[in-house]
Amino acid sequence: MQENFSFFNPVRISFGKGILKNVGKIARKYSNNALIVTGKSSMQRSGVLQKLLDILKAEGVGSTVYSGITPNPTCIEIDEAAKMAKDFKTGLIIGLGGGSPLDSAKAVAVAAKGDIPVWDYLKVKAKEALPVITIVSTSGTGSEVNRYSVMTNPATKEKPGFGYECMYPKEAIIDPEIMISMPKYVTASTGFDIFVHVLEAFTGKMKNAFSSAYCMQAFYLLKDNLINAYNEPQNLDARGNMALASALAGLAIDLSGTGIIHALEHPVSGNYPNIAHGAGLAALTVASLRYNISGCKRDFMLIAHHLGIKRAGKTDDEYAYSLIEKTQEILKAIDLNMSLKDLGVEKEALGKIAKEAFATMGFAVQNNPEEIDEKEALKLLELSY
Amino acid sequence: MQENFSFFNPVRISFGKGILKNVGKIARKYSNNALIVTGKSSMQRSGVLQKLLDILKAEGVGSTVYSGITPNPTCIEIDEAAKMAKDFKTGLIIGLGGGSPLDSAKAVAVAAKGDIPVWDYLKVKAKEALPVITIVSTSGTGSEVNRYSVMTNPATKEKPGFGYECMYPKEAIIDPEIMISMPKYVTASTGFDIFVHVLEAFTGKMKNAFSSAYCMQAFYLLKDNLINAYNEPQNLDARGNMALASALAGLAIDLSGTGIIHALEHPVSGNYPNIAHGAGLAALTVASLRYNISGCKRDFMLIAHHLGIKRAGKTDDEYAYSLIEKTQEILKAIDLNMSLKDLGVEKEALGKIAKEAFATMGFAVQNNPEEIDEKEALKLLELSY
Repeated sequence: MQENFSFFNPVRISFGKGILKNVGKIARKYSNNALIVTGKSSMQRSGVLQKLLDILKAEGVGSTVYSGITPNPTCIEIDEAAKMAKDFKTGLIIGLGGGSPLDSAKAVAVAAKGDIPVWDYLKVKAKEALPVITIVSTSGTGSEVNRYSVMTNPATKEKPGFGYECMYPKEAIIDPEIMISMPKYVTASTGFDIFVHVLEAFTGKMKNAFSSAYCMQAFYLLKDNLINAYNEPQNLDARGNMALASALAGLAIDLSGTGIIHALEHPVSGNYPNIAHGAGLAALTVASLRYNISGCKRDFMLIAHHLGIKRAGKTDDEYAYSLIEKTQEILKAIDLNMSLKDLGVEKEALGKIAKEAFATMGFAVQNNPEEIDEKEALKLLELSY
Repeated sequence: MQENFSFFNPVRISFGKGILKNVGKIARKYSNNALIVTGKSSMQRSGVLQKLLDILKAEGVGSTVYSGITPNPTCIEIDEAAKMAKDFKTGLIIGLGGGSPLDSAKAVAVAAKGDIPVWDYLKVKAKEALPVITIVSTSGTGSEVNRYSVMTNPATKEKPGFGYECMYPKEAIIDPEIMISMPKYVTASTGFDIFVHVLEAFTGKMKNAFSSAYCMQAFYLLKDNLINAYNEPQNLDARGNMALASALAGLAIDLSGTGIIHALEHPVSGNYPNIAHGAGLAALTVASLRYNISGCKRDFMLIAHHLGIKRAGKTDDEYAYSLIEKTQEILKAIDLNMSLKDLGVEKEALGKIAKEAFATMGFAVQNNPEEIDEKEALKLLELSY
């Protein structure tokens, strides 16, 4: 019998080539004074930030820009941006960019409504937030459609995730044209993030019929488009399909969570902020799949099928195992076949990483299909080294 | 390249065996005074209505019952119920039963907020409605999770559908235990309604990656469970899977609409209120699939695959066509292999039915994968006779 579950996602998703032009009218529904939360350079360089400012201006929406978000955003940056939102009395937060600015925009929306530092919301439940519009420039985090925000505490290097119902974006604008300018390495690492989202949501303990629907469709879209988008950055069709896969995967993890791969990766890039989240995931995935396979055979077989692997006389075990080989193939094709050592993680940091995974990512650890303790997690890290 | 689309569904869906017991607490979030909109007998006979009244009372939520909804609800019934909601100053509408009470609950919620007859909302856009909770007792219409309402005008026999954003239920309670008491004929006809929802949403012009995800999962769930639920009414697992398929299909048509089968069926049961919607659909489906097959080969092949039909050396054409054979098999297995004539439709009514389909269901006609005019629609009706 199916487990009880609840399904809720109130985000209005608009998808289409060139739809950025509609964002002025959409913003106006919420406020005529917006704070744009973005990173330091890519949206400036690609011209998308200027385009957004022009579109808002033309629609009579005033805006202020906070462009201090770093790749692994800190609670200090978020508090700074929230102060700006208060100072400028903005009624709307627009997140522009990849996962970091979008995650931050949601956290800023909460902090701007309250009077405590954002880090305190790990313990204090947030009940209200400013409305948020996400304009996503990468395909991977799923942050554009879910309530989650991940932030790093620079003092302790902890990198927990949090998410309350008031943090769902009101609107997600998904325009594949914005993604054309994504560098190859970002296409690979964010694209692999999608892969791990659907892997973990499809096999996790909290899986249900709705999240599985999203995952199956996302695997189907990932099949050709991940490698095509990597090899042909201008391929709008591949970009669009990856953007859809990202949103589907974002909805899936919103419903059904992640697992041990995400639990271990957060402290990796928390301690090594220069490691991209997707690269950290890439280093951890194969060992984690091997750890989980015994309890996930049927799920792995279904995923193998959706990834287009031919059954061709394979036994159930062989077919389930073929997912691991396929994952290695994909990692090679997008130049992410790297170990934690290759990424610059120090051997002596592994113990701390394992400990932090259990301290700050307990919900993901618990959702992993196989039980795992800190000692086994350390072993996984060593196998991924 | 993918078409532009927008995705939005703010309904909170709660699924699980026995979760009806939570409805008191859920209702209280919205109001302490509810109008229950239901039919004349089945919820009384099964004891579910009394159970609901007790649960609401225990939680301090007052309630009034309107139990005048007929199988093809009329605008007169809806206006009566809306008057009750106004007279009793209720702040919440609870729809209890199958598609008819749930559709009606949404229309009542609109009419209770306004001061014009509900029929006028076919032309006047509704901007606000009372909050609605749906408690679904059948698996088929998808009304529990979408914004649509279908009503019949007894004067003209028209049976149009309408749906505005304010009509989305706030909450959908899906408890498979309530479905155990569903009669076999209702299991068959509502179950086949799911089948046609996903058929039309998966092949329609407005299809997108999200609705296709719902459809694929629904086909996967329908594969064994439609016939199992029909043959084993007490099988809670089959009931639960059919309930999930119904919700997924409801979300799919909310995003991507239906097609010619629904367009033609509405005037059938509008003119012959004793014909169950699913039975009308059953009579129309095979001819419609034949009409659509040439432009839908790849979609039909994918559906065939999800319904578990083996490819086994079939050509593409043969594999696509196998969906039509499978549909006939399913109709036989659930005793719905009937023509319009078998259902009591008069031959001379076919012209009027074709005309009304174009007059009141134009959006479904336009969404059909193949272009179709009134003459061709009449031909389809004749082939289904």
